[in-house]
Amino acid sequence: MPDAAVRPVPAPASPTAGALGVLRPLGLDAARITGGLWAARQEANRRASIPAGAEQLDRAGNLRNLEILAGETQGEAIGPVFADSDVHKWLEAAAWELGRGEDERLACLQRRVTDLLARAQADDGYLDSVVQLRENERYRELPWSHELYCAGHLFQAAVAQVRATGSRELLDVATRLADHLVATFGDGRPGLGDREDVDGHPVVETALVELYRETGTRAYLDLARYFVEARGHGHMERYGAEPTYFSDRLPVRETPHPEGHAVRAVYLGAGATDVAVETGDTELLAALERQYAAMERSQQYLTGGLGSRWEGESFGDPYELPADRAYAETCASIGGVQWAWRLLLATGEARYGDQIERMLLNGFLSGLSLAGTEYFYVNPLQLRADAEPEENRSPAHGRRGWFDCACCPPNIMRTLSSLTAYLATRTDAGLQIHQYAPGPISSDGLSVRVETGYPYDGRVVVHVDEVPGRPVEIALRVPAWAEGATLDGAPVAAGGYARTTGLLAAGDTVDLVLPMAPRLTTADARVDAVRGCVAIERGPLVYALEQPDQAAGVVVDDARLDPDETITVERRDDLLGGTTVLRARGRVVRAPDGAARAPYRPLGDAVPTDGGDDERDVELVAIPYHLWANRGPQPMRVWIPLA
Amino acid sequence: MPDAAVRPVPAPASPTAGALGVLRPLGLDAARITGGLWAARQEANRRASIPAGAEQLDRAGNLRNLEILAGETQGEAIGPVFADSDVHKWLEAAAWELGRGEDERLACLQRRVTDLLARAQADDGYLDSVVQLRENERYRELPWSHELYCAGHLFQAAVAQVRATGSRELLDVATRLADHLVATFGDGRPGLGDREDVDGHPVVETALVELYRETGTRAYLDLARYFVEARGHGHMERYGAEPTYFSDRLPVRETPHPEGHAVRAVYLGAGATDVAVETGDTELLAALERQYAAMERSQQYLTGGLGSRWEGESFGDPYELPADRAYAETCASIGGVQWAWRLLLATGEARYGDQIERMLLNGFLSGLSLAGTEYFYVNPLQLRADAEPEENRSPAHGRRGWFDCACCPPNIMRTLSSLTAYLATRTDAGLQIHQYAPGPISSDGLSVRVETGYPYDGRVVVHVDEVPGRPVEIALRVPAWAEGATLDGAPVAAGGYARTTGLLAAGDTVDLVLPMAPRLTTADARVDAVRGCVAIERGPLVYALEQPDQAAGVVVDDARLDPDETITVERRDDLLGGTTVLRARGRVVRAPDGAARAPYRPLGDAVPTDGGDDERDVELVAIPYHLWANRGPQPMRVWIPLA
Repeated sequence: MPDAAVRPVPAPASPTAGALGVLRPLGLDAARITGGLWAARQEANRRASIPAGAEQLDRAGNLRNLEILAGETQGEAIGPVFADSDVHKWLEAAAWELGRGEDERLACLQRRVTDLLARAQADDGYLDSVVQLRENERYRELPWSHELYCAGHLFQAAVAQVRATGSRELLDVATRLADHLVATFGDGRPGLGDREDVDGHPVVETALVELYRETGTRAYLDLARYFVEARGHGHMERYGAEPTYFSDRLPVRETPHPEGHAVRAVYLGAGATDVAVETGDTELLAALERQYAAMERSQQYLTGGLGSRWEGESFGDPYELPADRAYAETCASIGGVQWAWRLLLATGEARYGDQIERMLLNGFLSGLSLAGTEYFYVNPLQLRADAEPEENRSPAHGRRGWFDCACCPPNIMRTLSSLTAYLATRTDAGLQIHQYAPGPISSDGLSVRVETGYPYDGRVVVHVDEVPGRPVEIALRVPAWAEGATLDGAPVAAGGYARTTGLLAAGDTVDLVLPMAPRLTTADARVDAVRGCVAIERGPLVYALEQPDQAAGVVVDDARLDPDETITVERRDDLLGGTTVLRARGRVVRAPDGAARAPYRPLGDAVPTDGGDDERDVELVAIPYHLWANRGPQPMRVWIPLA
Repeated sequence: MPDAAVRPVPAPASPTAGALGVLRPLGLDAARITGGLWAARQEANRRASIPAGAEQLDRAGNLRNLEILAGETQGEAIGPVFADSDVHKWLEAAAWELGRGEDERLACLQRRVTDLLARAQADDGYLDSVVQLRENERYRELPWSHELYCAGHLFQAAVAQVRATGSRELLDVATRLADHLVATFGDGRPGLGDREDVDGHPVVETALVELYRETGTRAYLDLARYFVEARGHGHMERYGAEPTYFSDRLPVRETPHPEGHAVRAVYLGAGATDVAVETGDTELLAALERQYAAMERSQQYLTGGLGSRWEGESFGDPYELPADRAYAETCASIGGVQWAWRLLLATGEARYGDQIERMLLNGFLSGLSLAGTEYFYVNPLQLRADAEPEENRSPAHGRRGWFDCACCPPNIMRTLSSLTAYLATRTDAGLQIHQYAPGPISSDGLSVRVETGYPYDGRVVVHVDEVPGRPVEIALRVPAWAEGATLDGAPVAAGGYARTTGLLAAGDTVDLVLPMAPRLTTADARVDAVRGCVAIERGPLVYALEQPDQAAGVVVDDARLDPDETITVERRDDLLGGTTVLRARGRVVRAPDGAARAPYRPLGDAVPTDGGDDERDVELVAIPYHLWANRGPQPMRVWIPLA
């Protein structure tokens, strides 16, 4: 970051000075991750994911659609209606990445794609290559056309580009398109158009607010507010579409918990939160906090994953959380992080930091291979030995290089490229560190260096290098799971922030210790799918049994865990890029296939056996959930029945 | 049945004399059900379901499509591509019903619809009204067009009509269409066409075999065999379709267990069994027996329901059997009964009789309201209190009068109209009774009357009214669950047939007693979804807790059952048309919603409470599963956690 000092880089989701909010984000350049798990993932993202992503976009035809419109080639549109959005998400990732450090090849590609978009744009600002090439009519079927969805991702990419690189070229494309949207959509209120409608897939809401933040154009905020308030008023039903899927059954402020398509729902939650804080709408903000809490209480997987149904890629009913058929789309975790981040800024409550940590380190990270070039769309908490791979997205295939619906891969890229945004915030009182990774953080004259082996090691040492000419504090998030944590040796409460007291001086160190003993976790009885099971967690990581780590004959499907035996911790630098494995005691139990015709039998009947060796004591070896399927698709389970 | 004696009515699925098989079906006129549960259901079917079904077909446009083709009106095709099949299934129901007794209004309607079909048929025999009206090209996209599926249901209706009423009009339509298919499809072997292809939705296989049985036209059997053998050879993939859904991933004889769309898979199983027995293909028959056993062992619900995924209405992986998201389509139970019946005839094994009983009395019958006019498409084993009704099929709506995809209602109608087919069979040795219902059965000079209150009462008395002039036996199925059964006071083994010994004479009675004590049933540990739960069964009936029967404050979602307490049995003539309820002891346990933010907590942590009254001893009242949702959609569960 040679020029970080001269050109500050506002992070994604940077509220204006007048917005509601307890915490303020730092610039993206205010922090760096210099080692450990996240540095390795950011490096793979930069070196492997983003370059391979450009090739995949080329191969899948996304770029060709733009080339046709730019007059460079001829042909028909290729790919799904939302093809442009993957280009935009990739561009956003490239922008944040260029903000983190120069890369001539990437910069060149970025200019090329930006130029294509500028030339593909219609004279009146409209831009959606598939609709331009394939349809006669714009906005013909908004439940499915994704036109505003694509626009939203373009806005986010443009904001990233100007913030991270200073280039305004994409921003010009974005504002022309946004001005066109402002002139088209709205309820006729001054400054907006009069077409009353919403897109079937939210994201334009949060993107318009960001564009407002970057440009100061109030109409973008007004349009975002219109789109949020217009939901739940029958727009999807006018097209004959069932409204639940589109988060259009109820107005946002009356929705008790997210429902329908999970990514749609959490993107809308994030966008509505942006609108609430920028318009000072405390009632809307409170409704969104309630909605988020209901989701966390009854609709979220232990991994942070969101969405329990394949059918409609959707949230299930409360407490419907099957491990095997968990959908938990990678994009839903990303949307969940975005929503939680906005609520963290708005409320200052550590619980949202806990949420971000849980999602990032588990249900999000599982979406990406260690090498950075293969992806899960769907992130179940169990894969059986005899699972049959079916369609493209099926986890039984293992991670894949790309998808027909390729929303997840570039979404992961942009998240990793902007990951430092989520580390810390500031207030007048000082600095709050929410996520722990080694590296420098500086803000308002306070400069610190974080030293930690987190998430594998629980010790977080903050070295104070520079202090401003006024008293400041450092607040460190103590996760709710961290009972027994200490700050500089003194006990601190779990589920909140531990704060330094007294005057900080350069040369000071602050020493947070989070307890890293393995924990056994159970679920509420209403989570029928995992009754009688425990999961193993250690620190912020959810663990899983995966087949390759087990001794011969220990079939993961049949494992049962003995909760009274000690779980041992072993660092394994040789395994999966370096990780920490946990060793538990348990049993394997299986009724031989041939013994019973039906899987049902009278209570109390002995399990049929075929020789007495069907049950024995074994060691069970667990790895972090996010590392599974890096050795091909393998039987795996997070929830383990009790022995 | 005034003319039953003069015109025998072969049942559906009546193998030819040369076919493989241990048991032979009786004619439909050889048995009657004169009382009890099934008589009431047959009566509702005749008086309510079938007349209302004709109105629904009229309202939904299915008949109008035919009227357009017949030149009676003008317009475009309405409804899904398989619209004709619902007409055909209704016609089949009407035919069997007319075989059971005269009904002038129904006969008139039957003639009218038959006439419409005859006039709608193309000159070369082709008939599919939606394709004729909507498409330019026949057989353009067989994975989805359902053209042979519709043909199959027409054949079944035609066979029913000629068998039950003697009318050959529909049979003429059917044979013209079948001859067209024979000339079109096949691998060029003598007598068949040369278009190598299969329909995306099986049923034509079993229907062609029946048409062969009725007409003696060998080409119909040859074409059925071709369709069975052609599966698993890439036909669906040629259209770009994923083959698993269509039972087209593997050849039938190499398929280890059914997969993909459940109704497709079990219809194919039934058709392949028909082909196997009529062609003497013992290898194919053995493969189908293995397939069925694998399905029963790991893919079937306790209710007999088949298909655990909404996504693709499909079978899940083995042991993936969620109670809440069970799909268990009513049609899949019907297809399951058809397949099991064919395997019962082929093998004579009582286990298939058990299967038919389980499906008919539980997962099939739950598809129909007591009044006979409302239907479930999807038959879950759990509905939570806060389940959100979504699409048309969602059980949270309760049963519905009809569906956009209306396959299930007329499928139920034809099954109830031909139900007596499944009661008994014959061999040279005598009569086998597989399903117990009161009424007369006669075959080969042996006439008996069954007297029983089954399935609520376990005593089955068979009165012998007439015997032939040779020694015969009566074999009575003793279900596998019936440990402790007696025949004429002597113990008989469960899971087989109890047979009379010695010479039977007119005036004899045979007295079978099946034990009717309530049973607690558990599932194999691999059925993760119901770990730690029991289900209550009594006799052949699976029971369920439904909210309206519980005392105030006993929320079904939170019920836990104490397995050590006695379950009491109470006859309730006032309830749900007369039923037997079971009373168990248990508890309700709920962690108050406000107490925890997340549903996960450390093992051993006390359940958070908000005043100490969150757990208490209660009575739990269970009703037969098939009766649920006759008082509106209500919280329900079959699998109850142990206290």
